[in-house]
Amino acid sequence: MHNFQCDYTEGAHPKLMAALMQTNMEQTCGYGLDPYCEKAREKIRAACEAPNADVHFLVGGTQTNTTVISAVLRPYQGAVCAAQGHIAVHETGAIEATGHKVLGLPCENGKIHAAQVKAYFAAHFASETAEHEVQPGMVYISFPTECGTIYTKNELADLHAVCKEYDVPLFIDGARLGYGLADPNCDLTLPDVAKLCDIFYIGGTKCGALFGEAVVITNDKYKCDFRYMIKRHGGMLAKGRLLGIQFDALFTDALYFAITRGAVDSALRIREAFEARGIEFFGSSMTNQQFPILTDAQLAFLSRNSLPEFWADAEDGKKIVRFCTSWATTKESVDTLVEDIANMPI
Amino acid sequence: MHNFQCDYTEGAHPKLMAALMQTNMEQTCGYGLDPYCEKAREKIRAACEAPNADVHFLVGGTQTNTTVISAVLRPYQGAVCAAQGHIAVHETGAIEATGHKVLGLPCENGKIHAAQVKAYFAAHFASETAEHEVQPGMVYISFPTECGTIYTKNELADLHAVCKEYDVPLFIDGARLGYGLADPNCDLTLPDVAKLCDIFYIGGTKCGALFGEAVVITNDKYKCDFRYMIKRHGGMLAKGRLLGIQFDALFTDALYFAITRGAVDSALRIREAFEARGIEFFGSSMTNQQFPILTDAQLAFLSRNSLPEFWADAEDGKKIVRFCTSWATTKESVDTLVEDIANMPI
Amino acid sequence: MHNFQCDYTEGAHPKLMAALMQTNMEQTCGYGLDPYCEKAREKIRAACEAPNADVHFLVGGTQTNTTVISAVLRPYQGAVCAAQGHIAVHETGAIEATGHKVLGLPCENGKIHAAQVKAYFAAHFASETAEHEVQPGMVYISFPTECGTIYTKNELADLHAVCKEYDVPLFIDGARLGYGLADPNCDLTLPDVAKLCDIFYIGGTKCGALFGEAVVITNDKYKCDFRYMIKRHGGMLAKGRLLGIQFDALFTDALYFAITRGAVDSALRIREAFEARGIEFFGSSMTNQQFPILTDAQLAFLSRNSLPEFWADAEDGKKIVRFCTSWATTKESVDTLVEDIANMPI
Amino acid sequence: MHNFQCDYTEGAHPKLMAALMQTNMEQTCGYGLDPYCEKAREKIRAACEAPNADVHFLVGGTQTNTTVISAVLRPYQGAVCAAQGHIAVHETGAIEATGHKVLGLPCENGKIHAAQVKAYFAAHFASETAEHEVQPGMVYISFPTECGTIYTKNELADLHAVCKEYDVPLFIDGARLGYGLADPNCDLTLPDVAKLCDIFYIGGTKCGALFGEAVVITNDKYKCDFRYMIKRHGGMLAKGRLLGIQFDALFTDALYFAITRGAVDSALRIREAFEARGIEFFGSSMTNQQFPILTDAQLAFLSRNSLPEFWADAEDGKKIVRFCTSWATTKESVDTLVEDIANMPI
Repeated sequence: MHNFQCDYTEGAHPKLMAALMQTNMEQTCGYGLDPYCEKAREKIRAACEAPNADVHFLVGGTQTNTTVISAVLRPYQGAVCAAQGHIAVHETGAIEATGHKVLGLPCENGKIHAAQVKAYFAAHFASETAEHEVQPGMVYISFPTECGTIYTKNELADLHAVCKEYDVPLFIDGARLGYGLADPNCDLTLPDVAKLCDIFYIGGTKCGALFGEAVVITNDKYKCDFRYMIKRHGGMLAKGRLLGIQFDALFTDALYFAITRGAVDSALRIREAFEARGIEFFGSSMTNQQFPILTDAQLAFLSRNSLPEFWADAEDGKKIVRFCTSWATTKESVDTLVEDIANMPI
Repeated sequence: MHNFQCDYTEGAHPKLMAALMQTNMEQTCGYGLDPYCEKAREKIRAACEAPNADVHFLVGGTQTNTTVISAVLRPYQGAVCAAQGHIAVHETGAIEATGHKVLGLPCENGKIHAAQVKAYFAAHFASETAEHEVQPGMVYISFPTECGTIYTKNELADLHAVCKEYDVPLFIDGARLGYGLADPNCDLTLPDVAKLCDIFYIGGTKCGALFGEAVVITNDKYKCDFRYMIKRHGGMLAKGRLLGIQFDALFTDALYFAITRGAVDSALRIREAFEARGIEFFGSSMTNQQFPILTDAQLAFLSRNSLPEFWADAEDGKKIVRFCTSWATTKESVDTLVEDIANMPI
Repeated sequence: MHNFQCDYTEGAHPKLMAALMQTNMEQTCGYGLDPYCEKAREKIRAACEAPNADVHFLVGGTQTNTTVISAVLRPYQGAVCAAQGHIAVHETGAIEATGHKVLGLPCENGKIHAAQVKAYFAAHFASETAEHEVQPGMVYISFPTECGTIYTKNELADLHAVCKEYDVPLFIDGARLGYGLADPNCDLTLPDVAKLCDIFYIGGTKCGALFGEAVVITNDKYKCDFRYMIKRHGGMLAKGRLLGIQFDALFTDALYFAITRGAVDSALRIREAFEARGIEFFGSSMTNQQFPILTDAQLAFLSRNSLPEFWADAEDGKKIVRFCTSWATTKESVDTLVEDIANMPI
Repeated sequence: MHNFQCDYTEGAHPKLMAALMQTNMEQTCGYGLDPYCEKAREKIRAACEAPNADVHFLVGGTQTNTTVISAVLRPYQGAVCAAQGHIAVHETGAIEATGHKVLGLPCENGKIHAAQVKAYFAAHFASETAEHEVQPGMVYISFPTECGTIYTKNELADLHAVCKEYDVPLFIDGARLGYGLADPNCDLTLPDVAKLCDIFYIGGTKCGALFGEAVVITNDKYKCDFRYMIKRHGGMLAKGRLLGIQFDALFTDALYFAITRGAVDSALRIREAFEARGIEFFGSSMTNQQFPILTDAQLAFLSRNSLPEFWADAEDGKKIVRFCTSWATTKESVDTLVEDIANMPI
């Protein structure tokens, strides 16, 4: 059975496992102050062309989102995001647990736009009773979004410009950043992303690591005392070098990009196979997540060999399902699925 | 150079690394619902002789403490502990971040006692203005304590009895649990610990794992919806099986106990070497942490080959330092240190 | 100029002021433990036909909502309410400040319905990934709602039945409770309200008091240690008797009901005057808040003598405004307004 | 029976009651934006000789402390105070409820000193593991302290200088500020206080008002968006003018100072009466709270006519009790008590 349910079904890329094995008996200090973390930080700064950025390593996404968001907001401020954004719906109130409201805006294809955000800020600050409402204090977007779509360079630049106008940070949740950058329509590079926001993170968990997210803070205003915040939120890993060793490997010889490009290539093969059969999709993802809309009969047919994840009900009794690829997806898995798609009932 | 600064300077025990390597390319579901976590849970229940306990795996200690404490307390309650307890001083306010006060009691050798706790509870509930103060809602102890000492079976039973009398849980922070059970004077077994508290955790990070703490909830009252709490606090690891695989290995053939016994044996060799030279100690630890009180000359002499951690200033310009052993401490390291102790200036 | 902007533009009903004056130099103990508070509690229990209810007095609405909501929810739970509910939009994140998400449901006329709430609960608990989302832990409604509408006895009973089915409390924000009970179409009495929920509060601030809200807890499950919660949230008034004295006066000779009935009578005179001119309304309020939709010319005409509050923009350049009446609204004010309405341009 | 238990046993000074009565039927806007609040702000700025200060009115002390402290601290910071400070022991964890640890320093007579605070700050920032502990982010003192003592001008200036050196605010809890300034040994004026800290509040509740505390922010750095914080913490009174009217009256013709001077005169008559009998005191208060140490027989004798508050047990079976005076203490009450003291058994 080939599991396409999510992009974290396996362990880590063999090169990362090898690096962990090789360094296992070395003695280093803890808490991310070791030479491996330092080396990984340097490589990430170089890859981002952001020599002055602060780079911090955390274990998981929810932890990263709560730590960053509560670090940058004042108590009465909230995080503006897409109503379907991860922090709005899938983190069991972890953001609210830090005292902050998530301010969801209506979205299409998972994205929010500069004009919409600007209108929201303008309305708040123009209100005579503004202080009776949560003040928007940052903008959070996912790249790619929860439904696999991406922002163009212009869209991101516009969003960042609005944030600057209101002096609030733009924070990009890059849990799947590499898969977004590997979208064939993407006109953004990693340095572009670093330039067009104030804080973002490069996801490791879904892109080849056992675990780990690298927070990159490019705006000096948000750098102060971030390590206190990590510790306060339970995110300071004792054997912090495990994060450094993995990110060092990911950013050696551009492994990170090779991994994500490969996964997107696989995903697009699957997409094309569905398109060839006239299947429609939820959203327009060109990244590692594909959301075809299938009949029960089609699902049953494919499920003999391949396991997608149920996403949502669609019209006419059809179902939206998610097929995820990752660094670990094998050619054999994709071949099998593609062949089954070609033969499934219409 | 032999590093004795802490018990998390290396990676994981080779058997755990082997298990992680061997399972690396398997596909499992995430979030701790995989078969490896289930197997590890079963083995832990068996080792604890607690067949009905709930077992949850978290990544680190601060995260575990905040998740457990905020799960069991009502908002206006606090956690009673030793004034020098880990949650009181070394977690950057992570407990307060969940809205709860840490209620530190004076302590000796890191321990608090039943009579003292009972008096504290009694005074609170007898007060006419009780509602103007934080209500003690649980008792937190570390086993072994932050200075390496342990509770006897009677002491723990007495403490638990007071907790039951006031219907509050006793929570044991077992970050170094195995090292405490390996103290030659310890009259407690793992099943005893499980019986004499309501919740505790078995530390992995300091006892042979890359990371990981196993929370064991024996009192039904505190089991409900604990996974929501884990997620809310950013502690639900996507590739949760990494925790299951490691704890499965630790509780196979009693590896956990072999590891911790070995480390304590090493620590006691070091202790004896110091005692043979008439060196005094801070506290009376018989576990894997030793706190000799040394002159600068002695420290300089030992530091040519071995690295202890500075702990605190003592009288007469002397310094308390900490020598930690772990599963990874080699015979060679201990031999070198013991020989240097024998030759250091008095 | 006659101010109809809100229902808290004046001080307190003269009988309350007289009671405060008369008792001013008496000496009593503080924090709500005085005889006046006790007397008021008894009268409220009697008026509610809830002899076993706990009654607590707080100063204001936001404070009351946060104290009640954080007292009844477990950390990972949220409060289900209308998307336009007061706690969702007008309290600067005070609920989130206690760590809880507000779970807004789509609403019409400010109300949410039993079937809708049941579906929401059912969907959550049926989800395989429920623990990745905030668990609905209570239902919050306003009576009357923010747009002046009320629930029927059947609607409230149905909502309460759903809450009981899921073992969560139904909490009624009664900041304007008396005005709702005075709606001529209301088929609920105060004892009905007390029976058909688990906790509610009787608003004083908007119904004749200088300030003050009386929380009535009818379900034993939510009574424990509530005074600790009040203190923790800064709501324990030192001179607590000020609240007792006022509520004692309000519930003497049914003053509370006389006050709110009078205000609604005035509001309905205003409503009829608008209806006579063919003016349409936002919502269908028959309580003390009226929301006519007016042209700029009409607004300008009325504003020479009477001050409404801007509410929202409507179609065709028209504006929704709010005219509020209260215990203090004079016949002269209403006469003036009604006459102006009769003469305003159409 | 003459009640000396606390300084909030009566309502408000007659002049404040008169002002509330006189303005009762006026219509004003809410939330502290009315002309009475504005007038009171102006008078307070003038009395403080702080023309640029921001002045905000809140209802009670706990609310004020939580609002100010959570407004100025970053999440990982705590408030340094005397271990016996009000926020450390008597607010049911209200500060921790906002996510912040209270960092209690050992104190004598309720006071902390500049050298002690400096050493604490220096130790924190010198520590290599500072980020594992709560960062001291402000200094909180009470003036007068919880045991009635005061700081000298030099002591306050020194404390403020340390705060400036570390760029943290000094916050003075002035719940009884006027009683402190009326201490015959006090060399500070209200403008001195305003100059020698960054934020403080002038307590109304204990000094003649029904309720109310006036927060004065003199340091621009802490002014931004404070009204959002008030609302978020449930402190924005709907009929905010009630606070303005009272503070306007208190700061008209220096009524505030007349009230507090009178109360301290009464307290010192009581003190002298005890001293004349050779009675010892807990602490050295020269303000409105007196803490004689009495035998049971003496207490029983005095308690026939006068009611003090039990404070704590003392040596030899004696008891520390508190006699409080206030604006409302009558000459007759003091005469009676003084006479009884003269006649009590020794």
